[in-house]
Amino acid sequence: MGGLMQELLRELSLLSSIASNLGWDQETYAPPAAVSFRAEQLSFLHGRIHQLRTSPQFRDGLESLEGANQRELTHQYERATKLPQELVERESSTSTLAKAAWDQARKNRTFEPFAPYLEKLITIAREKADYWGYEDEPYDALLCEYERGAKTQEVASLFESIESDLAGIAAAAVSQSASIAPDLLHGPAPVEEQQILNQEVAESLGFDFEAGRIDTTAHPFCTTLGPKDVRLTTRYDDHDFSSSLFGVMHETGHGLYEQGLPSPDFHLPSGQAVSLGIHESQSRLWENHVGRSRPFWEKWLPRAQELFVHLRKFTLDEFLLGINRAAYSPIRVEADEATYDLHILLRFRIERALLSGDLQVRDVPGAWNDLFKELFGFVPAHDSEGCLQDIHWSMGGLGYFATYSLGNINSAQLFEAAMKDPEVHTNFEQANFLPLLEWMQLHIHQHGSCYFPQELMHQATGSPTNPEPYLAHLRKRFINFSQ
Amino acid sequence: MGGLMQELLRELSLLSSIASNLGWDQETYAPPAAVSFRAEQLSFLHGRIHQLRTSPQFRDGLESLEGANQRELTHQYERATKLPQELVERESSTSTLAKAAWDQARKNRTFEPFAPYLEKLITIAREKADYWGYEDEPYDALLCEYERGAKTQEVASLFESIESDLAGIAAAAVSQSASIAPDLLHGPAPVEEQQILNQEVAESLGFDFEAGRIDTTAHPFCTTLGPKDVRLTTRYDDHDFSSSLFGVMHETGHGLYEQGLPSPDFHLPSGQAVSLGIHESQSRLWENHVGRSRPFWEKWLPRAQELFVHLRKFTLDEFLLGINRAAYSPIRVEADEATYDLHILLRFRIERALLSGDLQVRDVPGAWNDLFKELFGFVPAHDSEGCLQDIHWSMGGLGYFATYSLGNINSAQLFEAAMKDPEVHTNFEQANFLPLLEWMQLHIHQHGSCYFPQELMHQATGSPTNPEPYLAHLRKRFINFSQ
Repeated sequence: MGGLMQELLRELSLLSSIASNLGWDQETYAPPAAVSFRAEQLSFLHGRIHQLRTSPQFRDGLESLEGANQRELTHQYERATKLPQELVERESSTSTLAKAAWDQARKNRTFEPFAPYLEKLITIAREKADYWGYEDEPYDALLCEYERGAKTQEVASLFESIESDLAGIAAAAVSQSASIAPDLLHGPAPVEEQQILNQEVAESLGFDFEAGRIDTTAHPFCTTLGPKDVRLTTRYDDHDFSSSLFGVMHETGHGLYEQGLPSPDFHLPSGQAVSLGIHESQSRLWENHVGRSRPFWEKWLPRAQELFVHLRKFTLDEFLLGINRAAYSPIRVEADEATYDLHILLRFRIERALLSGDLQVRDVPGAWNDLFKELFGFVPAHDSEGCLQDIHWSMGGLGYFATYSLGNINSAQLFEAAMKDPEVHTNFEQANFLPLLEWMQLHIHQHGSCYFPQELMHQATGSPTNPEPYLAHLRKRFINFSQ
Repeated sequence: MGGLMQELLRELSLLSSIASNLGWDQETYAPPAAVSFRAEQLSFLHGRIHQLRTSPQFRDGLESLEGANQRELTHQYERATKLPQELVERESSTSTLAKAAWDQARKNRTFEPFAPYLEKLITIAREKADYWGYEDEPYDALLCEYERGAKTQEVASLFESIESDLAGIAAAAVSQSASIAPDLLHGPAPVEEQQILNQEVAESLGFDFEAGRIDTTAHPFCTTLGPKDVRLTTRYDDHDFSSSLFGVMHETGHGLYEQGLPSPDFHLPSGQAVSLGIHESQSRLWENHVGRSRPFWEKWLPRAQELFVHLRKFTLDEFLLGINRAAYSPIRVEADEATYDLHILLRFRIERALLSGDLQVRDVPGAWNDLFKELFGFVPAHDSEGCLQDIHWSMGGLGYFATYSLGNINSAQLFEAAMKDPEVHTNFEQANFLPLLEWMQLHIHQHGSCYFPQELMHQATGSPTNPEPYLAHLRKRFINFSQ
């Protein structure tokens, strides 16, 4: 590889990781008054990153690259240079105003004052799609930002093909869970004890605490500050140990992927995660397929009962019913495994219709509530529990939501494939999950962005994303109550 | 001011503050394995800072500046450009090796293996002094890095003029403290309770926790990550609340200075601290003149007794004897107020003699021990409690030590001048220290680096650094036992 391009890519990776460090500090420990100067620092770093990634040196250096690294960096260069500066700046300032308007609208529980900003963001998204180009419809160009190679039409067909099954499973799961009290597992859970359990569990799953850590934030996330330097965060409910623990297992899944990427290629696509749909497959795998399974709790329930006295009254079966209880919620981030995807299908349909022009912004609340009624059987009490609940649109993040369900579907497919390996399977039954991690490292992590997500799925499982394993998993867990 | 230079100085201040943020993360929360990539990030940032500060654009921009900002930045530019690249790189690599050799030598308690590295560092320091230039002796050029405008000969005269007084006060203080048990104030001190007291005290002194915070590190420090974003650190002894509390008051003093600098000039010398000798005057002021005073403890002892049960048996007088106990220690960082400067005087004489060539590196342990015997009356048990105890030399930090005693002397002089203001005095007696802070903000903080340290002292107190108030303070506290 050309020495100059190598240097340029290293500089970009240093700048990006430094920006991640400042972002992490801002979310975890920075004092409140640090915000405005922090914004200046970040804006400086992002400006410099954009400058380098759109520079003639970068363009010329692409020739010295090979294979996937050349393909991905050329793709990124083209996307970065195709947008006129005016549009980039307009998107940035519109997002800032939209975010403030969204905050206010949410407080007032009414969509109307946010509508003009969403209107502008949709216009900007269409303009971006036009500049970037697309084959079938503008939404393709947005989706591609998060899920390389994905086509809107294919995702739509996938989601349509499972919608009634998902709705049916959700309805059955909710009805069968009706007799389980929502606070069944609640009880005194001091933060210190939760931290002990979280740390022990994350470590047992293979998270490397020599290179990473867990801190506390209002909104949990996983961020990477250097090769294997992965920082997870969580929040604590002092009466419900499970909300933090499952959150930590979810973020640990993201973190294991990041720690499993090839460190020497940290500055190259070959050392970087391939897509959000694959990333989410890893978080959901460890949260749901491992963390809510019988073998996991055969091992860990006694430890949880040592730490949290109120759990001692439960048998393993009672406990499993508690952690796999299903209920409808108007709020996506509070949704359980059985009902989660319905929230995503709804958002995907609305986003796609907004982009194509089939839906007008002013009609979003009505469309949301109609679809919600269809899928969940009731209407949200107000817009803040409906179409205003997520931050994504206010940040211009259109095209993002679909990757959550792609992640769920991929997770089941990868889990099923891995479990065909007798060593993974046998050890899983004995609550030793390291062979499962090794399987993921071998089939997913080590490849970075060398393949498109669908190529990766095909190589790992024998087929591209296929919803059958996921539906089978949900049926087994929520209809047959077999954990 | 020229727009381009303004932009360049802003960029430099963004880069420096970002580097400080990475440094803070490294000392506080970064996982162990993050070190090597962090070094790459820091080296990149420092390289870029050096490049900008020695660029033709920077040189040309100096013309657009005025007054102290022009003077100080020209001085910094000249110092940065006078050193050949070869020397800068040699110093960096030699320091890295010297630091490792020092670590090892300290473990083995013998100076000899460190000697060849110190030899090289002394040679490098002499070369730097030659490139930078000096009037009287090479040491001037080094001292000036930390104490702008200071002359070695003047510092030496100052120190010589007080040496016998200091030694006499120390001897009397140590002898009078002999009946006070070293662990008089020790007792169970849970970290959480110490944190409560530290936070309450720092806040009452005026530290702005909206803009700053306190974390835990092995070696306490104060660092500034943005305008008023000041991060203090401390460490805890769970049987001695006072070691952390006085450490926090010391760092709070540094932090109040940083938070008192004019924020709009954050990127200019006029918004930056003027010297280490002035910085240390602020930390010592709050640690010793406030923190070890009778009015302070009239207010805070009852609160400390609420938090730490074992303190309830003490009267205020007994307690004050305990916190102002004096004893000889071979270790500088463990020294009390009465004996601290003797450690500095010793180091200053040895450094100066090494630079002038009057002392050979191989003779350092002998010279150290002889001088130590003369000042303290005993010889350190081995080199790790003697000439190997401090990290400064291994990092090439020659010329630094003098600023500790300059800080002590300045602190007493500033305190005496401030207390002549009736409002400061009256409030001080009632344990309201905000008027004292306002006095320091008015006379020291707000001026940034607009004046040389000695001009600042003169303006604030009517004379340049003068040891009489300090000697009077020590006599009052340690001979007359009047707190």
